[in-house]
Amino acid sequence: MTRVNRRITLAARPVGFPRISDFQISYRSLPEPEAGEVLLRTLYLSLDPRTRETMDATSDQVVALDSVVPGAAVAVVVRSLDSDLRPGDLVEGMLGWQEYAAASARDLRRLDPGLSPISAALGVLGAPGLTAHFALLELCDPQPGETVAVSAAAGAVGVLAGQIAKVRGCRVVGITESAETSRWLLEDLAFDAGLSSLDSADLDRALGEACPAGIDVYVDNVGGTLSDAVMERINPRSRIAICGQLSQLNLEAPELGPRHFGRLMAKQSTVRGFLLAGFTERFAEGRRQLTGWLAQGRLKIFEDVAIGIESAPRAFIYMLHGRDQGQPLVQLFEM
Amino acid sequence: MTRVNRRITLAARPVGFPRISDFQISYRSLPEPEAGEVLLRTLYLSLDPRTRETMDATSDQVVALDSVVPGAAVAVVVRSLDSDLRPGDLVEGMLGWQEYAAASARDLRRLDPGLSPISAALGVLGAPGLTAHFALLELCDPQPGETVAVSAAAGAVGVLAGQIAKVRGCRVVGITESAETSRWLLEDLAFDAGLSSLDSADLDRALGEACPAGIDVYVDNVGGTLSDAVMERINPRSRIAICGQLSQLNLEAPELGPRHFGRLMAKQSTVRGFLLAGFTERFAEGRRQLTGWLAQGRLKIFEDVAIGIESAPRAFIYMLHGRDQGQPLVQLFEM
Repeated sequence: MTRVNRRITLAARPVGFPRISDFQISYRSLPEPEAGEVLLRTLYLSLDPRTRETMDATSDQVVALDSVVPGAAVAVVVRSLDSDLRPGDLVEGMLGWQEYAAASARDLRRLDPGLSPISAALGVLGAPGLTAHFALLELCDPQPGETVAVSAAAGAVGVLAGQIAKVRGCRVVGITESAETSRWLLEDLAFDAGLSSLDSADLDRALGEACPAGIDVYVDNVGGTLSDAVMERINPRSRIAICGQLSQLNLEAPELGPRHFGRLMAKQSTVRGFLLAGFTERFAEGRRQLTGWLAQGRLKIFEDVAIGIESAPRAFIYMLHGRDQGQPLVQLFEM
Repeated sequence: MTRVNRRITLAARPVGFPRISDFQISYRSLPEPEAGEVLLRTLYLSLDPRTRETMDATSDQVVALDSVVPGAAVAVVVRSLDSDLRPGDLVEGMLGWQEYAAASARDLRRLDPGLSPISAALGVLGAPGLTAHFALLELCDPQPGETVAVSAAAGAVGVLAGQIAKVRGCRVVGITESAETSRWLLEDLAFDAGLSSLDSADLDRALGEACPAGIDVYVDNVGGTLSDAVMERINPRSRIAICGQLSQLNLEAPELGPRHFGRLMAKQSTVRGFLLAGFTERFAEGRRQLTGWLAQGRLKIFEDVAIGIESAPRAFIYMLHGRDQGQPLVQLFEM
């Protein structure tokens, strides 16, 4: 039986929120690794809101039509033309939304399945965990007892930023898209307060009740009107890390909003934009810290797993609506 | 002859830009100093855009109707009931828009006229100089060769921020309200580029020409559409200090604008709000540095002087339109 590589390609550039018809499943024969490369079978694919940006023609890292949608994955080596990697070895890399990939060993990071669950390489020990870690601790330096607000708090980055803030002894307020996920934050993650941003009239009041002492630190993954409401409650010398702007990703035209610079001045507050690329030299340090907290049970792993490459587009759209509880993954094969 | 204290009081709360009729001149007998106080005759009064905020009923530090408009001043001691200060001594303090004031010695800073011109206590060695110094150097840490943009560059803070950036070896781009003042920045202050923000269609092109390598540091005194144009040209890891929002002070209703958090993220940039009150413990250090640069001729003093207490309202309104060249002062008496 000849094996086939099923791939999800970009069929059309989304206007606003992507639709299922913007994606296409295509079939190819397995790629042939060259010298120094390995053939990989993907086990888990992670879904990342920033992939949405690559679908716009104006993006710096635009994905071509009919190309495989980019994404990080955990995979097992099937065949190796590299001197170090062997069949059965587990790796992480930017393999895209496809079942098989050929990749150079130097673009892959080898995983030790004895240390932590392999899917953690895409979550707490991957881009979301490192983002939560450096954005919260390096950009915002939260102090014990301070109030830390997190938007998209049930999402991949938010669920970790909130947990790390709890490790630091902060009061953590999670803002999510639904009452169900905000309850989940309270019950399963022991956040101090959770609220849903769906109803913006209620949001202001809910924020006031959840943050009686104002907001000292804000890890923002959403932006837009949600951040406008948060800005009304920031404290003097508050610190804001911009990790994502989910609310702005799928707009058909740029949105106007209230001007925040005057309030930043009055509060002597700081807003810093975060890209994980700014911290590459400190990934090993960050992973050591996160692995330690994981081993101590101070961080819990939450994954929202869809099954099969064909479910990736739907799971991606679901994530863009802020519906996930934890790290959104697609499982393609069992080990 | 009985001397009279002429004072400028707030007659009405301005709606939008203040008008002359929002102020009133009133006459009082000279105040009587109590024990520990001195009677002062004001020589120079400084005008500060932030005074506009105190005229709004919503301000944290609202000035009551029919009260003297607040402001910093340099004055000479006329009569003293304090053990340290003597008639003829020179001091600086928050004396308000009036010709005479009684003040406690502990609220005054004694000046040494041998060290620097006494009016400098209100400019380069006062709030504007300290603001320019700490906002530029502490919040933005400009490096030699970087492009530093300054808005309201001909104003009290801007003219000093630009000069300090030149001391640091930066390329300085001054943005002013008129072609005349931007020419002045080039000719008298040796800024590297100057442009007028009056025509917003031209502003974008002018900024592009003035900042061919983008903008690394932005000292913002204006905000609004001017800052929107600057934000289009910020470089990766740029630093922005918000020292004032002149464009927003006189709006009749809050203005909407483009959202900047997404760009801050993409550029890994930092925006920090500045209040001089955050640096009180470092005033002596800042003044030492500024006094040194002044003595070395690396900073020049530029003052825009109106004469007589009755001219304060008009000079204040003129300043709010961004028309000044240097530190706006009102001279009340000769020494």
